Amino acid sequence: MVQSSHTVTAFEEDMKFLAHKIAEMGGLAERMVENAIRALIKSDLQLAQKTIADDAQLDEAQALLDEKVVLIIAQRQPMASDLREVFSTIRIAADLERVGDLAKNIAKRVVAISERGHSVNLARGIEHLGDLALAQMKEVLDAFGSRSVTRINMIRDRDDEIDAMYTSLFRELLTYMMEDPRNITTCTHLLFCAKNIERIGDHATNIAESVYYIVTGKHLAADRPKEDKTHRIVIGEADG
Amino acid sequence: MVQSSHTVTAFEEDMKFLAHKIAEMGGLAERMVENAIRALIKSDLQLAQKTIADDAQLDEAQALLDEKVVLIIAQRQPMASDLREVFSTIRIAADLERVGDLAKNIAKRVVAISERGHSVNLARGIEHLGDLALAQMKEVLDAFGSRSVTRINMIRDRDDEIDAMYTSLFRELLTYMMEDPRNITTCTHLLFCAKNIERIGDHATNIAESVYYIVTGKHLAADRPKEDKTHRIVIGEADG
Repeated sequence: MVQSSHTVTAFEEDMKFLAHKIAEMGGLAERMVENAIRALIKSDLQLAQKTIADDAQLDEAQALLDEKVVLIIAQRQPMASDLREVFSTIRIAADLERVGDLAKNIAKRVVAISERGHSVNLARGIEHLGDLALAQMKEVLDAFGSRSVTRINMIRDRDDEIDAMYTSLFRELLTYMMEDPRNITTCTHLLFCAKNIERIGDHATNIAESVYYIVTGKHLAADRPKEDKTHRIVIGEADG
Repeated sequence: MVQSSHTVTAFEEDMKFLAHKIAEMGGLAERMVENAIRALIKSDLQLAQKTIADDAQLDEAQALLDEKVVLIIAQRQPMASDLREVFSTIRIAADLERVGDLAKNIAKRVVAISERGHSVNLARGIEHLGDLALAQMKEVLDAFGSRSVTRINMIRDRDDEIDAMYTSLFRELLTYMMEDPRNITTCTHLLFCAKNIERIGDHATNIAESVYYIVTGKHLAADRPKEDKTHRIVIGEADG
């Protein structure tokens, strides 16, 4: 019995360690997104470079966490319910690693975009979309830290807002391209940046769903499609 | 001892079950990619719809596999080395699920693209890129099925070929847009389709790396960046 209680405590310690690692990864991913978008808006090549370099830390943290999880499971042999919690942690780490990749990809486009410059309007659109995605990141990391699910529905609703804003930005970018072919290169890169931000929002929502599962042991109903809604967009051009 | 040998056999049976599920998911993902690209080339809306609908099967298969893995670990309490193999299976399933998502996203763009039509040349470029990605998918699923790593390096090299071809298609699509603004909508959707195919190639390479790990117990050196190389592309326009 003492043995068993000791085992439980050790497992709880392990879970605390994993939670701490996730918080670290979350902080880094959040900062990368923030820096990537700032680098894009300000055409700050140095900040873009830093963001690209930071990604290696996130990849490394994920590899360490995955390896630690294998050791925890082998040593503690947790029950199925505890295993599910451990698995949720792996899933959250994978989502954060993808967020880092997406931020890095935005940072990599800064060079091409800054060569041509970009309109203040477009930058504002990207910035606003980025603010929404960042607010989501903060929200889900807080939810994970406090094991709170009270704001989960709000987080899902706000992802719909991000999708809607991405859709409108997509239209706007296509329109700019049509107005002046000199905008095409920049707008194409901005399109991919916007798409990346939209996907960062999806990953935040995934994390929210994992937190919900950790706290309640239940899966949220998969009632909301995460796909973006731009695939049907056809902009009517003047058929000159 | 008899008990232990019994346990080993049960675990091996479980691993066979997982391998069978992965083969099933792989076959489905491959077919979805094939159908999505065919639907795109032929503007076949019905085939596009079928591809979109098929994705639910793949999601379901992944959820079942994940749940089965939790039960296997809880029941068999495998050692760390066996756990790593089980984890590789989860990772392969996640890659296949993403391949299905990407195929679905291509299929969803068929409507917008077919409304405007597309040039035979562009379609040929996408088709060729798709053929390369499909060849990779077949190759890695065979490698998984036969637990063979002899062709792993070839698979990685061919991913470089896909990246190079994607880069050239990216340039070509930008050029088309500049030549005639009426091409912008279609070319933007084709750009995203090309990007999706490039990412399918990345996931195939991930799977190859997981197979390598399952067979050898070692990680392949992460010497090749999977990022695409289009982020620096700036097409020099005639400055009207």
